[in-house]
Amino acid sequence: MIRLSYGRVLQEGLDGRRGITRPQLTELARQFRGVHAEVMARRKAGEYGFLSLGNQASLVREIRTWADAQQGRFDDLLVLGIGGSALGTRTLLSALAEPAWNELTPEQRGFRPRLTILENVDPRTVAAALRRMNPARTLVNVVSKSGGTAETAAQYLVVRDWLNRAVGTAAAPHHLVFTTDPEKGALRQLARTESITAFPIPSDVGGRFSVLTSVGLVPAALVGIDIAGLIAGAASAVAQAESDDLLTNPAGCYAALLHAADVEHGAHIHVLMPYVDRLRDLGAWFVQLWAESLGKRESRGGQVVHRGPTPLAAVGATDQHSQVQLFMEGPFNKVVTFVMPDDLGDDVTIPTLDGLTSDFDYLPGHTLGELLRAECEATSAALAHQGRMNAMLRLPDVSAESVGALLMFLQIATGYAGVWYGVNPFDQPGVELGKTLTFAAMGRPGYTAPPNGGVEATVG
Amino acid sequence: MIRLSYGRVLQEGLDGRRGITRPQLTELARQFRGVHAEVMARRKAGEYGFLSLGNQASLVREIRTWADAQQGRFDDLLVLGIGGSALGTRTLLSALAEPAWNELTPEQRGFRPRLTILENVDPRTVAAALRRMNPARTLVNVVSKSGGTAETAAQYLVVRDWLNRAVGTAAAPHHLVFTTDPEKGALRQLARTESITAFPIPSDVGGRFSVLTSVGLVPAALVGIDIAGLIAGAASAVAQAESDDLLTNPAGCYAALLHAADVEHGAHIHVLMPYVDRLRDLGAWFVQLWAESLGKRESRGGQVVHRGPTPLAAVGATDQHSQVQLFMEGPFNKVVTFVMPDDLGDDVTIPTLDGLTSDFDYLPGHTLGELLRAECEATSAALAHQGRMNAMLRLPDVSAESVGALLMFLQIATGYAGVWYGVNPFDQPGVELGKTLTFAAMGRPGYTAPPNGGVEATVG
Repeated sequence: MIRLSYGRVLQEGLDGRRGITRPQLTELARQFRGVHAEVMARRKAGEYGFLSLGNQASLVREIRTWADAQQGRFDDLLVLGIGGSALGTRTLLSALAEPAWNELTPEQRGFRPRLTILENVDPRTVAAALRRMNPARTLVNVVSKSGGTAETAAQYLVVRDWLNRAVGTAAAPHHLVFTTDPEKGALRQLARTESITAFPIPSDVGGRFSVLTSVGLVPAALVGIDIAGLIAGAASAVAQAESDDLLTNPAGCYAALLHAADVEHGAHIHVLMPYVDRLRDLGAWFVQLWAESLGKRESRGGQVVHRGPTPLAAVGATDQHSQVQLFMEGPFNKVVTFVMPDDLGDDVTIPTLDGLTSDFDYLPGHTLGELLRAECEATSAALAHQGRMNAMLRLPDVSAESVGALLMFLQIATGYAGVWYGVNPFDQPGVELGKTLTFAAMGRPGYTAPPNGGVEATVG
Repeated sequence: MIRLSYGRVLQEGLDGRRGITRPQLTELARQFRGVHAEVMARRKAGEYGFLSLGNQASLVREIRTWADAQQGRFDDLLVLGIGGSALGTRTLLSALAEPAWNELTPEQRGFRPRLTILENVDPRTVAAALRRMNPARTLVNVVSKSGGTAETAAQYLVVRDWLNRAVGTAAAPHHLVFTTDPEKGALRQLARTESITAFPIPSDVGGRFSVLTSVGLVPAALVGIDIAGLIAGAASAVAQAESDDLLTNPAGCYAALLHAADVEHGAHIHVLMPYVDRLRDLGAWFVQLWAESLGKRESRGGQVVHRGPTPLAAVGATDQHSQVQLFMEGPFNKVVTFVMPDDLGDDVTIPTLDGLTSDFDYLPGHTLGELLRAECEATSAALAHQGRMNAMLRLPDVSAESVGALLMFLQIATGYAGVWYGVNPFDQPGVELGKTLTFAAMGRPGYTAPPNGGVEATVG
């Protein structure tokens, strides 16, 4: 379903100086058998739980039945979550709901709710959201794997108080749905105490791999997205990744090439650049996935390595008028991956106008889709002409199946990349110190800040 | 008005191994006198036109008078523009209008229009926007410096046809306002022929430096943003940059430190991370400004250098759950700049709840703003503890004055950085080949594509 065109990461597809050589590709294919075997072994040992997310028929049925029963009850769905509890849902909404979903009328939305994601503790954003919404017609989805995320906990207290005051403490649980660990944590405990509906996040699937768990599926189903299609697409991507033959396993090939582009050719900045607005938010989701999984102080073996490529999000054609100048002419430290659907959906023909200036007369008769596609192909060719490695991910369309496949494809690639980079892609030890310092500043018992090593130096 | 705290880019503020030393700082201050003098000389020679944008009292009056006369006439303002014609306007809207502006009622918007920016030629986005809007109640602002931008021209043809069909060819000009070159180009010519209102973009100010010209001011005024305040803030930033003493010139100091962090310490990825949702879109605006201005094949002297730092956008506290793992533990190739207002505006106290789990009991009594600020300070301190250079831009609040000052501050810093990097920050030659290939694909007379050097290689 997902195809990877990689001719322009190869030296022969570039200017003959940079890029991956045929012998390097052969060597990657040889090494890949071991990489694939390590992933399979680790999966057996309990890691890589996300690889089972193509197989969730009964959960999908359960969520759909529940979501359909909510239809018409709520004008607003308010998701409280941060990081992996927010980015995937945002990606699904922009990819698969009508554009500007929240600006549509209830009829245009099929009486599905607007969807607002609070992913920060900025008081102005939170206050404005609660001002806009009618608590009696709002469903609040609180999403935290651990149940104890500070930002989400703070939001929950504010929003729960708002619900309690408006609908009463007894009725408030009917305006809440939790997505959290199946057994542990504060949210699970609250759900039990107050009989709040709660969907599980599998304990072997981490936040940044959770878009295809209840984390993404619950809000997606509530706004009417085909979640069975998402999961079917995910299953197809898992099936595509069964082979230990590099050149028949697109996600395996993608991870191998990006890693080789980094370590062999210094292209340590990995740009993801979809040429379709519906995949605009995919960039931020990919950035979390790639950055947090691969950016590590220690190797699997415990050596200090300070490793990790830097992911970068872009959108075409928009970013041709922004970042592309740097991609074309700056240092040779990037590899750009375009994402292009074969079918863009309903197209728009560019009309002609009376008295049209000759500056515009090459456009009429073409469609906007033709222009968008021409720009994508042109940017890829121009990068190659400048000796810049670039690849193309092709998907059939922007349907639930294709998006599910694409998300799973990128998750699988991340899983392989963890092995290539020699790091654990499922932990995030680097954020603990910041949490500790925050807890100390907030006076949480048991947390103290180390002495501040900073020097004060200010201009202005 | 804008203060730069830079103690944690200094070696003594970090772990004593990485970072800028006091002797390096002294040397930067010495060199800065020459950098500043070069900017002043080039300004005299006609470059650096944006430095005059603090002085636009009569244009501001003209735009305000015109915008106030439109109030109540339109439900929707549709901006057609890409790159520098879109990113600044988006930044102003999210910084200075009510959150989720387009979701508010006309009363809540003070009968100012919703604002939609079409910055791509994705047919689905364009069709959906036109479906949502009532042409009889829509004002279309077409923004292109040259007047000939392909994407904007294509959008214009589609949207103009939509207007013509709905309101008639004779009335359509009353639904249009152009922002373009004062003399030249297709839009200016159309404006003259059809008596369409058109505001000028000064010919010595390029697209990515144009947010404080009519490009940003016209839509900002239409949605009720205090454009006089924006310009007053910009003037204050220009005044702050008059000194050739590095340690009294915050924008000069910022550019010098980022350049030194890159060339002396390998920190060639420059992260901008505001800790306030209202400045979320500032990131994409900064990315264009920094990437397109500094990413160049050739030095000013004509040598092939392939130079340029890579800007990266992040938002706190959100990205603590995404990119920060990589910033903390990955390669030492980044410097992070936080942006933090002294005053966040109306705050929200975190309430307590009956039966509160002990996991959350450190939160009640604090405010969301306190939590946000604690997280910003904690992330800065944790980065420093890991030997990671980081700086803090402080502004008084998120008012029009402060935002105008911040935008101008970053533009001035970019202007200085051009001198430090030895490149022309005002051109973008690297995007021409992509344009040529697109024109060739679209059959524009006079454009042919060079032979395609790619090789076809696809997996999946």
